[in-house]
Amino acid sequence: MDSWVDGQPADALSLKDRGLAYGDGLFETIAVHDGFPVLLDRHLVRLAKGCRRLAINLDHAAVVSEVLTYAEQLNDGVLKLIITRGDSLRGYAFDPSAQARRILTGNPPAVYPQAHAEQGIRLFPCTTRLSFQPLLAGLKHLNRLEQVMARAEWQDTEHAEGLMLDQAGRVIEGVFSNVFLVHDGVLITADLSSCGVEGVMRAELLSQAESLGIPLQITDITLEQLQGADEVFVCNSVYGVWPVRAYAALSWPVGPLTRKLQTIARALLDA
Amino acid sequence: MDSWVDGQPADALSLKDRGLAYGDGLFETIAVHDGFPVLLDRHLVRLAKGCRRLAINLDHAAVVSEVLTYAEQLNDGVLKLIITRGDSLRGYAFDPSAQARRILTGNPPAVYPQAHAEQGIRLFPCTTRLSFQPLLAGLKHLNRLEQVMARAEWQDTEHAEGLMLDQAGRVIEGVFSNVFLVHDGVLITADLSSCGVEGVMRAELLSQAESLGIPLQITDITLEQLQGADEVFVCNSVYGVWPVRAYAALSWPVGPLTRKLQTIARALLDA
Repeated sequence: MDSWVDGQPADALSLKDRGLAYGDGLFETIAVHDGFPVLLDRHLVRLAKGCRRLAINLDHAAVVSEVLTYAEQLNDGVLKLIITRGDSLRGYAFDPSAQARRILTGNPPAVYPQAHAEQGIRLFPCTTRLSFQPLLAGLKHLNRLEQVMARAEWQDTEHAEGLMLDQAGRVIEGVFSNVFLVHDGVLITADLSSCGVEGVMRAELLSQAESLGIPLQITDITLEQLQGADEVFVCNSVYGVWPVRAYAALSWPVGPLTRKLQTIARALLDA
Repeated sequence: MDSWVDGQPADALSLKDRGLAYGDGLFETIAVHDGFPVLLDRHLVRLAKGCRRLAINLDHAAVVSEVLTYAEQLNDGVLKLIITRGDSLRGYAFDPSAQARRILTGNPPAVYPQAHAEQGIRLFPCTTRLSFQPLLAGLKHLNRLEQVMARAEWQDTEHAEGLMLDQAGRVIEGVFSNVFLVHDGVLITADLSSCGVEGVMRAELLSQAESLGIPLQITDITLEQLQGADEVFVCNSVYGVWPVRAYAALSWPVGPLTRKLQTIARALLDA
């Protein structure tokens, strides 16, 4: 379907847009099912957090209304919302009162092999390391060259995702997913205060696990801890949960907590 | 004057462009004087290096011919060349054979107060730190949120530039300049193998200094070394050289080597 800019059908963007010039903006990739944006509240919360951190003035009411209308027309698929700080003046300085630009594009549903969800996936060991930048950590901002470079490290279809470490060798996330592991019944995911993206499905699963009384830990994860895990899985807001069977020489069975959270994620995406 | 995309007049860009989506591209800001792009060879070398590092396929011959023609029409001003990896498929993966998109925009000459060049400037002490990322260091890529955040730290006109340190507290560069210092007759600038942009004017001044027999050092610079410097200056390919008079509580006189290199830069920009 047609794309929109600031609520109007449009197929092109100003060449002076700061999203292009500097990656000066944020995005959200939202699953749409039966005309409804899945986990919209969590996407809006993350977006608001990003706007606050980057001092971007966004008409949040317009975003909600546009996303709801756009999703209704898309019906089933994946909606991408890009927010930029609008047009450049000259150089990096910006007008603090400038209103953000809202860009909506739609795609058909993402199609992945059934086996990813059923039998689990292999993670490619990416050598591209995530840099330490607490000012930007957690945000889904438009500066994504590290992910582009990491994703370019493998072309085979044997690896459905890649695992990214930080500069200190800690396990942080997948290229387009967050990573969880289970150890002695505890659900563990990486602390993202120095790098990484705080995924919407990650936040949802953490909250669901808490409601179920599952012990949680948000912490630094070493490769040794990954190796010693009972279960490993990745998640995002489009495909839900994929069990991880292997990473380099390491391997894991598909475990019961992974299956439980996968069922919960599936139900949200199919609701 | 009109902007160009791939050699044709255009005022807008595809909403699927990867420059917008991920900052997946590079740029060059080129001074144009009397219809000629200043230091074009050095801009092209840096661009080629960036394309190689990011595996971007660029029609370099088209770039040269377009930049020369565009500069002739602009006559005097600042030309901005943006290279992106073209349109997105879906997600971070890219088609390795995709041809890069070439975007040219023109602006009138940059106007700065005469005092910047004559009496020197004050550097704002930015708290935004540059992250360690050797894979991207040196390149003028489109992921520039750190610079956007650093530039937003001051609004006053008392500071013409800001100084950025890396996460370890080393002196790296200005927000839109490179930094040099002079100590006991040695010209010193920061090693940019972990972060920072290898400026075209920086490369030119290093080469000119070498021809003049001035001893050079490209090394890690501490704040203590900055404090002990005899002269400090910043440079870029648009304004040339500005002496630095002060940074926080530190201050320096405008020295003879700064003036010598400033004259050389001025001559290049006015050639």
